[in-house]
Amino acid sequence: MKLSCPLPKLDFDTINLGHGSGGTLTSQLLDAGVFKLLENDLLNKKHDGAIFNLSGKVALSTDTYVVSPIFFEGGNIGDLSINGTVNDLAMCGASAKYLTLGFVLEEGLKMTEFWEVLLSIKAACDVAGVNIVTGDTKVVERGKGDKIFINTTGIGIMHPKANIDAENIKTGDKVILSGPLARHGITIMSHRQGLQFESTISSDTRPLNKIVLSLLDEFGEKIHFLRDPTRGGLATVLNEIATDARFGIDIIQKNVSVEEEVIGACEMLGLDPLYVANEGLFVTVVDPTVADAVLSRLKEWEYGKMASIVGEITTDHPRQVIMKSLIGGRRVVNMLPGEQLPRIC
Amino acid sequence: MKLSCPLPKLDFDTINLGHGSGGTLTSQLLDAGVFKLLENDLLNKKHDGAIFNLSGKVALSTDTYVVSPIFFEGGNIGDLSINGTVNDLAMCGASAKYLTLGFVLEEGLKMTEFWEVLLSIKAACDVAGVNIVTGDTKVVERGKGDKIFINTTGIGIMHPKANIDAENIKTGDKVILSGPLARHGITIMSHRQGLQFESTISSDTRPLNKIVLSLLDEFGEKIHFLRDPTRGGLATVLNEIATDARFGIDIIQKNVSVEEEVIGACEMLGLDPLYVANEGLFVTVVDPTVADAVLSRLKEWEYGKMASIVGEITTDHPRQVIMKSLIGGRRVVNMLPGEQLPRIC
Repeated sequence: MKLSCPLPKLDFDTINLGHGSGGTLTSQLLDAGVFKLLENDLLNKKHDGAIFNLSGKVALSTDTYVVSPIFFEGGNIGDLSINGTVNDLAMCGASAKYLTLGFVLEEGLKMTEFWEVLLSIKAACDVAGVNIVTGDTKVVERGKGDKIFINTTGIGIMHPKANIDAENIKTGDKVILSGPLARHGITIMSHRQGLQFESTISSDTRPLNKIVLSLLDEFGEKIHFLRDPTRGGLATVLNEIATDARFGIDIIQKNVSVEEEVIGACEMLGLDPLYVANEGLFVTVVDPTVADAVLSRLKEWEYGKMASIVGEITTDHPRQVIMKSLIGGRRVVNMLPGEQLPRIC
Repeated sequence: MKLSCPLPKLDFDTINLGHGSGGTLTSQLLDAGVFKLLENDLLNKKHDGAIFNLSGKVALSTDTYVVSPIFFEGGNIGDLSINGTVNDLAMCGASAKYLTLGFVLEEGLKMTEFWEVLLSIKAACDVAGVNIVTGDTKVVERGKGDKIFINTTGIGIMHPKANIDAENIKTGDKVILSGPLARHGITIMSHRQGLQFESTISSDTRPLNKIVLSLLDEFGEKIHFLRDPTRGGLATVLNEIATDARFGIDIIQKNVSVEEEVIGACEMLGLDPLYVANEGLFVTVVDPTVADAVLSRLKEWEYGKMASIVGEITTDHPRQVIMKSLIGGRRVVNMLPGEQLPRIC
């Protein structure tokens, strides 16, 4: 593996159980790499907890990342774990500020792999404008974990104009999707299957905080709802929205963007892109008076060229999502019943 | 296993990969058990993040718990994961308020076991006076995890009189230990070795927030430092304090409480109690003018009967911990070099 920054000089080249002991080896591991790489005033204290001032309305979100494989086109478990939590906070209408980082490492993990994950964590923090302020490292025996699991928990400051609540959704509201579906899930799945597609599909992992906060700046309370269709895909998120809002949703399939190569891959793998996980995508339900303006702003964003109004909130068929298909028929879109792609994030 | 509260009626009796999908099975699992058991206004929102008001100085701490076995005398991974994070915050001088809960479940985990862990989480939250406000559930394939790993991340409100910082430690300060050593580590270790001791030793897992906050109420800034000797044990924590404070520490072995049965178990297992993990214990470094009063308060606490002044801060041998042994000799006490007991918490 080619490292984008040299590995610090260490006496070991794989993780062993001692690195989770809380003793000398843990200190060596953290002092040699983690603290230096991620340094900031709060983390530098090296306490069990970080202490800071906060005031006002905040959001708190947690996620544990168990994606397999840990490296994939477009990212790895490191940047995924930062972007994912930054995005969960953005979906609350909050600007991520402080993150915690908890590792469960499997004995035998190569230090080069761990270092590459750390470099991605650092890069993703820089892009999103967040700091890791405290953390924890545990090591489990070979065969009791799978290379690396990462928990990130984030605190974000609520945007003063944010009022993101399913209760705000009303009939006639427009449902907007920020980009094309299914890239992250297809990337992971094709890796696992060892498939080669003609053109490379890469994960869409990225932070969504800046675009979401700029929409809140401009449109405020007219942004009624936000959610990122990760596990379970777009179909699951739309069903959750319909259930929580107690309204129906009408979706027009031709407006749902899916790239050609992703469609091809889905067909080859027997997957419906509506259920495939995404990482750098969001759904927003907005007041109809601002729908076109929101769409314009999304299209100005570098990842929003394929944004579109995919549907509308309706009082017909409450709690149901109905899609008008490409050939004109109408079908109910249910939640993902079981597991389509385990360990996608 | 005898459950202290009946398991909800479910269509499944073990965890499968679908429970981590984010789809219908995840909802079934959460709605049937987790949300109802842990309910509070913030968690009831079922969003990806919890939103609340905070103001002033706060502490943030994270820990992932991978203890094996997950059930042991005196507790299980559930209450351990709540108490551990509540205690990390207490060591910062903060009163834990909101916790996040992240599960990594192994496919095949029995629902009865998961439920028992959840019941302990609930009970521990009630004792400590904290709420779980948001969470995450992931499932990994059989053989890629080990029953259950739990991340908890907590936010606590700083006690207005707290000023816990190694920089405040000065020569002549007294080092106080809140109780007897090594119970948690010996409990776990004897379980793993299948050993039976004559009398039952149980884990000392418990929340320390109330006793610590009451000490801060009374003694304020005279409490210079706090830390709980978990992984790496008392020896490691004393070395960390000596290093951070740039002072030496003199310890008197006869003042360090270890119960008879724990001494016996340590001898049988070949372990030094100074390095064995504790869970419900803390070390505090206090101004000498309040040392006796702090000790009196600790002895009034139900778990503080064996509290004692174990040592003193000195300008001699900076960054070194030196113990006067029972037979009168003096020896350097180093940090735990490798791993004594893997997966102790």
